[in-house]
Amino acid sequence: MDMKKVLILGAGLSASSLIRYLLEKSTDFNWQIRVVDSKIDVVRRKMAGHPNGVALSFNATDSEARRSEMEQADLIISMLPARFHAEVAKDCIALKKHLITPSYISPEMNALDAEAKAAGILIMNEIGVDPGIDHMSAMQIIDSIRARGGDITSFKSYCGGLIAPESDNNPWNYKFTWNPRNVVLAGSGGAAQYIDRHEYKYIPYSHIFSRLDAIEIDGFGSFDGYANRDSLSYRSVYGLENIPTFYRGTLRRSGYCQYWNIFVNLGMTDDTYKMQDSESLTPRNFLNAFLPYYVSVPVEDKLRKFCKDYGITDLERFEWLGLFDNEHPIGLPNASPAELLEHILLDKWQLQPHDRDMIVMVHQFEYLLHGKEMTIESSMVNIGEDETFTSMSNLVGLPIAICAKMILTEKLTDTGVCVPIAPHVYNPILDELADYGVKFIEQERTLSTANH
Amino acid sequence: MDMKKVLILGAGLSASSLIRYLLEKSTDFNWQIRVVDSKIDVVRRKMAGHPNGVALSFNATDSEARRSEMEQADLIISMLPARFHAEVAKDCIALKKHLITPSYISPEMNALDAEAKAAGILIMNEIGVDPGIDHMSAMQIIDSIRARGGDITSFKSYCGGLIAPESDNNPWNYKFTWNPRNVVLAGSGGAAQYIDRHEYKYIPYSHIFSRLDAIEIDGFGSFDGYANRDSLSYRSVYGLENIPTFYRGTLRRSGYCQYWNIFVNLGMTDDTYKMQDSESLTPRNFLNAFLPYYVSVPVEDKLRKFCKDYGITDLERFEWLGLFDNEHPIGLPNASPAELLEHILLDKWQLQPHDRDMIVMVHQFEYLLHGKEMTIESSMVNIGEDETFTSMSNLVGLPIAICAKMILTEKLTDTGVCVPIAPHVYNPILDELADYGVKFIEQERTLSTANH
Repeated sequence: MDMKKVLILGAGLSASSLIRYLLEKSTDFNWQIRVVDSKIDVVRRKMAGHPNGVALSFNATDSEARRSEMEQADLIISMLPARFHAEVAKDCIALKKHLITPSYISPEMNALDAEAKAAGILIMNEIGVDPGIDHMSAMQIIDSIRARGGDITSFKSYCGGLIAPESDNNPWNYKFTWNPRNVVLAGSGGAAQYIDRHEYKYIPYSHIFSRLDAIEIDGFGSFDGYANRDSLSYRSVYGLENIPTFYRGTLRRSGYCQYWNIFVNLGMTDDTYKMQDSESLTPRNFLNAFLPYYVSVPVEDKLRKFCKDYGITDLERFEWLGLFDNEHPIGLPNASPAELLEHILLDKWQLQPHDRDMIVMVHQFEYLLHGKEMTIESSMVNIGEDETFTSMSNLVGLPIAICAKMILTEKLTDTGVCVPIAPHVYNPILDELADYGVKFIEQERTLSTANH
Repeated sequence: MDMKKVLILGAGLSASSLIRYLLEKSTDFNWQIRVVDSKIDVVRRKMAGHPNGVALSFNATDSEARRSEMEQADLIISMLPARFHAEVAKDCIALKKHLITPSYISPEMNALDAEAKAAGILIMNEIGVDPGIDHMSAMQIIDSIRARGGDITSFKSYCGGLIAPESDNNPWNYKFTWNPRNVVLAGSGGAAQYIDRHEYKYIPYSHIFSRLDAIEIDGFGSFDGYANRDSLSYRSVYGLENIPTFYRGTLRRSGYCQYWNIFVNLGMTDDTYKMQDSESLTPRNFLNAFLPYYVSVPVEDKLRKFCKDYGITDLERFEWLGLFDNEHPIGLPNASPAELLEHILLDKWQLQPHDRDMIVMVHQFEYLLHGKEMTIESSMVNIGEDETFTSMSNLVGLPIAICAKMILTEKLTDTGVCVPIAPHVYNPILDELADYGVKFIEQERTLSTANH
């Protein structure tokens, strides 16, 4: 049997576990794993000298540059930034090569479905984590409730990339385990929309971090969930178009959101304009720019007064970030408030060597089963191995890798532009993820028995 | 002497006083006033049968359609929506005709300066009210302080279009006297920026209506000023590039802003998305969409809870708007929150026959004069005549009309793209405005005498 070739475009943070899995299986399955990244030393380190690994360095975002590599591959995995996926997909269609991406399907990608089918290839998307494992684990429960004759009335789903308890040693109970810019801009750019008992609900940015759901996970303590911008479009993904309650949220440790809300409402997360003389601003000047002028009232007192309206009296978290420092300019020229805040946080919320990250996922279902009101709560907590094989890297990389195996071994022969919501896709992936410690704990309860 | 022809493009609300003034003077000065609007009956009514008036009806926004009229005119006045002015200006340059517009200079308009000068024509902009009378009255004080050797350290300027005290009969102390959409969207779309004692200050939308300046005007009571989005760019217009404090604000009656802030923070002024099933929403459903779901808690109680954080306990203003009404759908399909709110307010805040509007303007200066700290507060309150010759129509139309007279009589022979900030422009206009009752009351005070 010929050696099958997998081409991985991009070897960033989230590719580590993907590469490791594929190399580990490569001898048994006779695979060659070819990985291209502009940083070839990063690729080589991730390959750890494995004989079936080939490190390549060229500009993988350039269609011409990658063509000859794509031609000889059996399967492409794009770990490039999401904006490049549609172009990669078009090349895959032209060359009749299967493609996997972990990213949300863009409208442009969605439009390629018929062409992908005609070319006889599968383009699997949203198969990492949020999106990915959330879809698969939710669909497994949804399909099982339906198979038993249940009628789902409420589905709330939460996910968060956090710091593991053993590495959680700052007053925010948070470190950057993923793209810091996205953390700073979370919730901005439009009202959060969801549906609650048939009522459409809208939360403006100024209140996203104060309308919270408290979430408790046995053995892991308390979290707060805040609303994602777009919950409504997921109803159709899950086949729950007419469900009375549907909500998707993001998890933070309790307390984080209440304090983050201060940054939001001061205007320090705004990315729509550049601040005057931003290069000369100290953290203290930066903070003061969002507080009114009062002769001889220190910044601390003005912030305390502002915080009081938000139920906050203790400024320790702000103090700890060095926001009152007037000695050291942040040093970013022509920067937006969001860019300056990110720069301050980068230093303080950076993962340290040996820090471990943690991904938490919670699904809450309410449904009617033969006249009974039932609930299922399913939760998953996953902790990273180290700073390379983070939980984020494992939970993004493993489902992709397992899906790749299914395609290469022809266990998965679907075609078209897909997401992993069909049982023949999610069941084997979730089963194998469990072997890697990605386990959901499910609790089913009966709330009431209706009178008949 | 030949009859000079003035062509007015657009006969909307703010053109009434302009047309009246020019017709009144037309016999003495031998002018013909040609007015084009799609609604010819509106033009005819505004001309009231005056022999020097000619009513025209064609699409004045169409360059081809207006060309022959522009060719025979001596002066064009564009009362079209601001986005059309640059195109009108280009035609004026090509035909060598003077142009007046009341609107802010756009970058596109600004770029025409050299061409306008080469064509030997004047394009006068920002010569109505806010912008217009505010520029002229401020520059007159600025120039006089400078002429006396003073050094201006602070300039705050406020303007508001409001309802006159005799017509002020609702709990909001507000009615629409101008574009309702702009009132609903006021403050949205970016942080307000100003400078206070050399410190740049930024206010996000969620706090614009809670960071207020209290303004008192003798005989007219209390007002609140909230920050305009862009104060900083006006420093150079006034030649005050290095002034320590510079702020421009908008006036409302005291209390209005505190309540309006509830709409802002609920998200009801958002114009960036369309609400689900908007055509079926009653005012009560609409309000409820921005409040959390709580089983069997009425909307009133949820709103009361929300308002408490903003220091509001009395819901009368919301009740009066009919926001708790669940009988009558608002009836707007595919509408944004801002569009639905505007529709609710239109009914309630509509000017009634015989209602009079009021424009209030306040300038506050601080300056050093030969070692003394001095202040000048200059205020103007103008009340409309009736529902046609509103204060808004008078204060927009009269400065344009006076400027038109100055151009036609060759008292004003400047060329290029201008705003009315030069003494030979603003002095005669402010003098004649005073004859029409547009008077500023100025109070100068000495705060302290520095020790030498």
